[in-house]
Amino acid sequence: MIHALTWVDGKLELIDQTKLPDETVFLQISKIEEIFDAIQTLKVRGAPAIGIAAAYGLYYGMCESAPRSRDDFFAILQKNIDYLASARPTAVNLFWAMEDIKTKLQTRRESNIDRLKNDLLDLARELHEDDRKRCEGIANSGQEVIPQNARILTHCNTGALATGGIGTAFGVIYRAHQNGKNIRVYANETRPLLQGARLTVWELHNAGIPVHLVCDSMDAALMQQGKVDLIILGSDRIAADGSVANKIGTYSLAVLAKFHNIPFYAAAPLSTFDLSISQGKDIPIEIRDSNEIRNVFNKCPITVPDVPCWNPAFDVTPPDLVTGIITEKGVIYPPFEENIRKIFNP
Amino acid sequence: MIHALTWVDGKLELIDQTKLPDETVFLQISKIEEIFDAIQTLKVRGAPAIGIAAAYGLYYGMCESAPRSRDDFFAILQKNIDYLASARPTAVNLFWAMEDIKTKLQTRRESNIDRLKNDLLDLARELHEDDRKRCEGIANSGQEVIPQNARILTHCNTGALATGGIGTAFGVIYRAHQNGKNIRVYANETRPLLQGARLTVWELHNAGIPVHLVCDSMDAALMQQGKVDLIILGSDRIAADGSVANKIGTYSLAVLAKFHNIPFYAAAPLSTFDLSISQGKDIPIEIRDSNEIRNVFNKCPITVPDVPCWNPAFDVTPPDLVTGIITEKGVIYPPFEENIRKIFNP
Repeated sequence: MIHALTWVDGKLELIDQTKLPDETVFLQISKIEEIFDAIQTLKVRGAPAIGIAAAYGLYYGMCESAPRSRDDFFAILQKNIDYLASARPTAVNLFWAMEDIKTKLQTRRESNIDRLKNDLLDLARELHEDDRKRCEGIANSGQEVIPQNARILTHCNTGALATGGIGTAFGVIYRAHQNGKNIRVYANETRPLLQGARLTVWELHNAGIPVHLVCDSMDAALMQQGKVDLIILGSDRIAADGSVANKIGTYSLAVLAKFHNIPFYAAAPLSTFDLSISQGKDIPIEIRDSNEIRNVFNKCPITVPDVPCWNPAFDVTPPDLVTGIITEKGVIYPPFEENIRKIFNP
Repeated sequence: MIHALTWVDGKLELIDQTKLPDETVFLQISKIEEIFDAIQTLKVRGAPAIGIAAAYGLYYGMCESAPRSRDDFFAILQKNIDYLASARPTAVNLFWAMEDIKTKLQTRRESNIDRLKNDLLDLARELHEDDRKRCEGIANSGQEVIPQNARILTHCNTGALATGGIGTAFGVIYRAHQNGKNIRVYANETRPLLQGARLTVWELHNAGIPVHLVCDSMDAALMQQGKVDLIILGSDRIAADGSVANKIGTYSLAVLAKFHNIPFYAAAPLSTFDLSISQGKDIPIEIRDSNEIRNVFNKCPITVPDVPCWNPAFDVTPPDLVTGIITEKGVIYPPFEENIRKIFNP
């Protein structure tokens, strides 16, 4: 399995996701500016993956500076956090991942600059390793929802390319395949940015898992014809009531699944839960540029140049349409509000 | 309004729909081979429009021949029907339109070859005029379902580019606009062939009707946010029970509309009803080439080259999800089986 990020011989190696699936190009990163560029231009993408990339970026940034004091070190760190966060201003997880590292570093009373630098690298590697383990946990928990010979419909990309491990929803799929469950996958192309067509199909192909690509509009007909046993996809944020914010098109799938009586699962690490948000309607939805719809891959125009588009990046699925949420600590079932509380305060 | 086909000064003029929306190119047609090419390469598309183009094509075909007898005339006609039908072998309406013209011509006891030729042209022009009138009828009938300030969601292209008149669903929308109803339209891009993005947006723009383009996967979120008052789209075939076969994605919209309690209408001439088919499940669904999904506009690859796709051209919406069917003889409401029978046998 190819990983979005690998730390080898003291260097970060990234797969350039903008070149996929045509070319498999690995980038050797050695500067914070290269991390900034990789995040901004989507060479690395997926909430967990960009958080990890940014963490390594903070380390590189510190290697390029010569802080003279602990205060100086944290001032430079803050500047670098702001710099990397500006690469994708709406990706709040990116910002949080870096803030979390800063907070952890501040608790270390260390004033030796070189040791602080090493601690920073350790924290980046811990974040990476932690995400890898969470993916493994999700993959294992999820096995209880995947029957033998399951035909699985998925949306967007939630695999090794989006995380520091084998992925969230994709991790569950991959583990089911490893366990000999004879699964087959329908991958939604996931307009407008086509992460399903470009990345999910490529990952499933590489893993030797049988896959059919479909357009998002074909899902209902697929379900009507009895070709889907369950739906499993990822999540970008989950509210305290179990509302699932995820790639645009997810809510559509949830409604269609309910109508056709097909189980609908979201797979996400506990770090995706935002208990400060009580209800789904309070999750802010990023509205993106019309050009993403008007031009496929920024180069193939499909419509009248100036037509206005409505281009929400995410949608929110209410908890009553969700069968279960697969986490590294097990599958959470309804009633969600109560059971989410229990998993965080056992 | 620009029309897909116009008969001017004894010649057929076609707008080349493969060049839209980038360029507006009119083709002057004078040979049956040009009609064949226009149909095969989708320069002209939409069931009514290709039927009309083929009818003119039969006339051109006869002008290029020198039949010596009535029998000879009909032998050549049959050969030309088979030839044009082979331009899109799965478009049964195309074949039926030509067979209907042949049958009508055969009832004329005429044996003067020149008069038969003229009759053939008259029948083509009648078909064209008949379709124009049906569109007008649909546009007028449909007004009862369009409230003031309606926000309308539509799918695929059902306008002047697809018919011999102002269109079916688009005709209703266009007339509502003319009547000052202050409507706004959300046009689905309609993957894989993007007729909505390419053609519907262009037509609505030209007609001065406010339009937003959305990806098909965004419809559910659009409905969830209360941005849609009704859905209106076309149909390729309607069974005796009121099941509606139409562009893939239609059934998805119907389920989503039911869930959100939004009215769902199909607009189609009575010629679209196929009373020989009693139930929706008996309507054959054409499965098209995977390349249509894998390559946008046959030139922009979006995925792994050989990934198998499931690419149905149509889906079938069961009658219990349909609010009404708008025809040139009025809107048909449930119970459909009974009310469809009544409209055909008043």
